[in-house]
Amino acid sequence: MKIERINTTPRWSDATIYNGIAHFVEIAADEDADIVGQIKQVFEQADQTLALIGSNNSRLLSVTIYLKELQYLQLFNDMWEAWLPEGSAPSRACLKAELVDPRLLVEITFIAAVIE
Amino acid sequence: MKIERINTTPRWSDATIYNGIAHFVEIAADEDADIVGQIKQVFEQADQTLALIGSNNSRLLSVTIYLKELQYLQLFNDMWEAWLPEGSAPSRACLKAELVDPRLLVEITFIAAVIE
Amino acid sequence: MKIERINTTPRWSDATIYNGIAHFVEIAADEDADIVGQIKQVFEQADQTLALIGSNNSRLLSVTIYLKELQYLQLFNDMWEAWLPEGSAPSRACLKAELVDPRLLVEITFIAAVIE
Repeated sequence: MKIERINTTPRWSDATIYNGIAHFVEIAADEDADIVGQIKQVFEQADQTLALIGSNNSRLLSVTIYLKELQYLQLFNDMWEAWLPEGSAPSRACLKAELVDPRLLVEITFIAAVIE
Repeated sequence: MKIERINTTPRWSDATIYNGIAHFVEIAADEDADIVGQIKQVFEQADQTLALIGSNNSRLLSVTIYLKELQYLQLFNDMWEAWLPEGSAPSRACLKAELVDPRLLVEITFIAAVIE
Repeated sequence: MKIERINTTPRWSDATIYNGIAHFVEIAADEDADIVGQIKQVFEQADQTLALIGSNNSRLLSVTIYLKELQYLQLFNDMWEAWLPEGSAPSRACLKAELVDPRLLVEITFIAAVIE
């Protein structure tokens, strides 16, 4: 079975799709944005990735959320719950972690089901 | 194909099941328990989640274990090996990480196969 | 459906394979190697694991890379891009994390598609 990939560079693909399952990771394209801006971008970028693969944010299976500072947690949770359609929240882990660029405040890895 | 979810709140589901694969995350329900109590709870809760989805701890595919302090590693490993049925250990990553509540000492993300 | 496992110990399997998907984690077998040596080993070990399960490094779906120090990032990226066949890069998250042995400098979790 063929692996589909979105925007493949030598370093990563924006998403891989195989057997109805997509893996993708989002960090804010504008790394200089504040925490609200970065969270908003991560969700918008995830919506775009999901649209590209024929899915949407009601089809998330699992996420791991990395926050640079735990003081962002309440804000993140509020924006997260506003973003997700009712009754569709995925399995979720959330950790404090240092990301590869010091300006990055949030990173999320997603596993999602494609619509079939 | 439909996504099945267990105990969905606006923030997360206790588990998602899709195409025979379950994703779930466990932290101790009693966050004030000591490390032995939290590990025990995480395993008991995982057993309960696995039972709910028609699986068990001999069907784990992959886990990522987050420990707040590496001094818990030996104890964790002893309890982990006692918990797992012989010959069924999954792929496993184990890291030190700061969890979202300062009282939390261990968190595990699980990917498991449903019994079919 | 049966779960296949490679080199199962009481603590972990070197890989699990289920429904065409493999999960495995690599850390350098020689934990005293320097960062170049550890990265090289992780890729060689991944190649070996992939060969054992009838796959190769053009079939990666998702990786999470944990680096002990972010100063290794540029070096890691160079070796990573040299290792991957053109046009096959997976979804990728990369974080700073403290690993279970203080000598360990890099750990990677892989999800890969078996060749079918």
